[in-house]
Amino acid sequence: MTPIPPGSTIGIVGGGQLGRMIAIAAAQLGYRSHIYAPEASGPAADVSARWTQADYEDGAALERFAQDVDVITYEFENVPAGAVSLLAGLGHVQPNAAALRVAQDRLLEKGFVAGLGGRTAPYAPVDDRAALTTAIAAVGAPAILKTTRFGYDGKGQARIGDVAPATLDRAWTEIGGQPAAVLEGFVRFEHEFSVILVRGHDGEVRFWDTPHNVHESGILATSTVPAPAPVRAQEAEARGTARKVADALDYVGVLTLEFFAGADGPIFNEMAPRVHNSGHWTIEGAVTSQFENHVRAICGLPLGSTALDAPAVSMRNLIGAQAHDWPEILADEAAHLHLYGKHEARAGRKMGHVTRLHF
Amino acid sequence: MTPIPPGSTIGIVGGGQLGRMIAIAAAQLGYRSHIYAPEASGPAADVSARWTQADYEDGAALERFAQDVDVITYEFENVPAGAVSLLAGLGHVQPNAAALRVAQDRLLEKGFVAGLGGRTAPYAPVDDRAALTTAIAAVGAPAILKTTRFGYDGKGQARIGDVAPATLDRAWTEIGGQPAAVLEGFVRFEHEFSVILVRGHDGEVRFWDTPHNVHESGILATSTVPAPAPVRAQEAEARGTARKVADALDYVGVLTLEFFAGADGPIFNEMAPRVHNSGHWTIEGAVTSQFENHVRAICGLPLGSTALDAPAVSMRNLIGAQAHDWPEILADEAAHLHLYGKHEARAGRKMGHVTRLHF
Repeated sequence: MTPIPPGSTIGIVGGGQLGRMIAIAAAQLGYRSHIYAPEASGPAADVSARWTQADYEDGAALERFAQDVDVITYEFENVPAGAVSLLAGLGHVQPNAAALRVAQDRLLEKGFVAGLGGRTAPYAPVDDRAALTTAIAAVGAPAILKTTRFGYDGKGQARIGDVAPATLDRAWTEIGGQPAAVLEGFVRFEHEFSVILVRGHDGEVRFWDTPHNVHESGILATSTVPAPAPVRAQEAEARGTARKVADALDYVGVLTLEFFAGADGPIFNEMAPRVHNSGHWTIEGAVTSQFENHVRAICGLPLGSTALDAPAVSMRNLIGAQAHDWPEILADEAAHLHLYGKHEARAGRKMGHVTRLHF
Repeated sequence: MTPIPPGSTIGIVGGGQLGRMIAIAAAQLGYRSHIYAPEASGPAADVSARWTQADYEDGAALERFAQDVDVITYEFENVPAGAVSLLAGLGHVQPNAAALRVAQDRLLEKGFVAGLGGRTAPYAPVDDRAALTTAIAAVGAPAILKTTRFGYDGKGQARIGDVAPATLDRAWTEIGGQPAAVLEGFVRFEHEFSVILVRGHDGEVRFWDTPHNVHESGILATSTVPAPAPVRAQEAEARGTARKVADALDYVGVLTLEFFAGADGPIFNEMAPRVHNSGHWTIEGAVTSQFENHVRAICGLPLGSTALDAPAVSMRNLIGAQAHDWPEILADEAAHLHLYGKHEARAGRKMGHVTRLHF
């Protein structure tokens, strides 16, 4: 493709912290950003040239947005399919609609990855309460019931400890009696990790170092590179799976796949067709950040080096009131503080992160 | 002082590329930026939350601006004294009015540095055409006639090769018959360099590595660290002078002093009470950039490490049509491209810069 040159405008659907960091990376390369979001404002507002507040169902607003920008991308994948199709018809959208469609649906996503030879936990579709009884028999307990769509950071999930009907009733109610859910069997694992890659228009794929991720209360707490040996031993297979996914979707941009390090190999958990929290360390920790390479990829520019800037790098999320620790963090000379400009430090809310390079 | 916490708004006078890079650094730490500039837009517009377009003489606009922000700083020093005094009375201004007053006037600046024991080239004040004849007799030819105020990138300057009255007439006309000028004698030097420091509210001073600067046609072309040996040999004295200047002014923020490496020691050329083009390499090349440390200093936060990220770092400005080389620069994996979002690549215009880390 002909590159979309610096000076052009990047349309970003979603105005949270990922959009904020994409917009900053875009600005560094000379691009303007235009955010489209249902909210009146958000973390990306202060670093973008324009902000359109409109619903994802507002066809006229989507059309005006598409006309103002030279390429459209996403900071989150839970955009209604109708909006995606409309935007895809109006402009140049990367990652493409197929990637979004797969990533929006846990069931589709698991089937897609399994079809490409990737390992998944045992799972079964659950469309009603009766199906849950069938599914738990197949998958076994403990298990976890998830809505297939629009879940993130542990939301839309219910843990199931045993097969008692009352337990199943409660889980079914907990996820709101969604007509489309999936029951996932628990897998034994010692570690979680993610594969973060960028794929260019020409099909070139580059991987950042594999972060070892630790979650607390369903939310990412830390990402560290290099990962411990048991993770590194599974890196090649996991990368192979991620590359197949990217190639099969003719994916352009940054793609993240999360894995469990299982006894027999990497078990695919979920994918995100976007820059990812477990890659925030790349801002200072890699030659080219995930945000800059995402911009480069969707604009058809050469990809930058994903090499490490230090022997080891760690990133810690600042959740809720942890953001109040900024004075101590700033006093630590090895720490790079990032705050997202959110006004209220609500519990469970990602307020910022801190990255440390270890030499 | 009580720190101005993240979430606060930083007022930046001037909306060019320095304001743009300050705003990006401010955003990373969770601050909003509000630009005040006479122009309708500029490089800082795309990465700042607010932009006030108003003249520096517009007292009501200055007042509204001061009320909206928690601290006021500058991306360039040529703000009319009246506006500075007004802002200083309205809010918390850093660097302070005294620093701006000194840096705005070449004559005052030279006298101030000389008074603190710094070396300067021979110079003499020139208030009218007759004074130029007297001055050239004292300073000798060749020399350079400069307006005392509002000159930058070689503007407002006239070279004088000999003492012939016609030569002096032409030079006097060339600088527009300014009532306040200064004649500077030429000094022999092999190298130019700058001292870039940040000074905190508590008086702590940190220096970045000393960049060796090369100018072309009066505009900075490259800055490189480490500087060659003859420059490094003069670093301690130059830093001593810069520290005295900062201490004497009770300076808060990033301060830059430019020097010539003369035969007997560092010869002070000029100072900038702000982040400086010769410090752009600190974005990738130092643990904490000049932009982030400027924000930290004016907000009363602890200063970040100024240590190098690589054994050597170089920065090249992209002037005018050089910005069209972005495809080649992006294809170089060692290069970090920065473009300022300026629409027209006019000759002599700073369009961006490229930084390379050398390992």
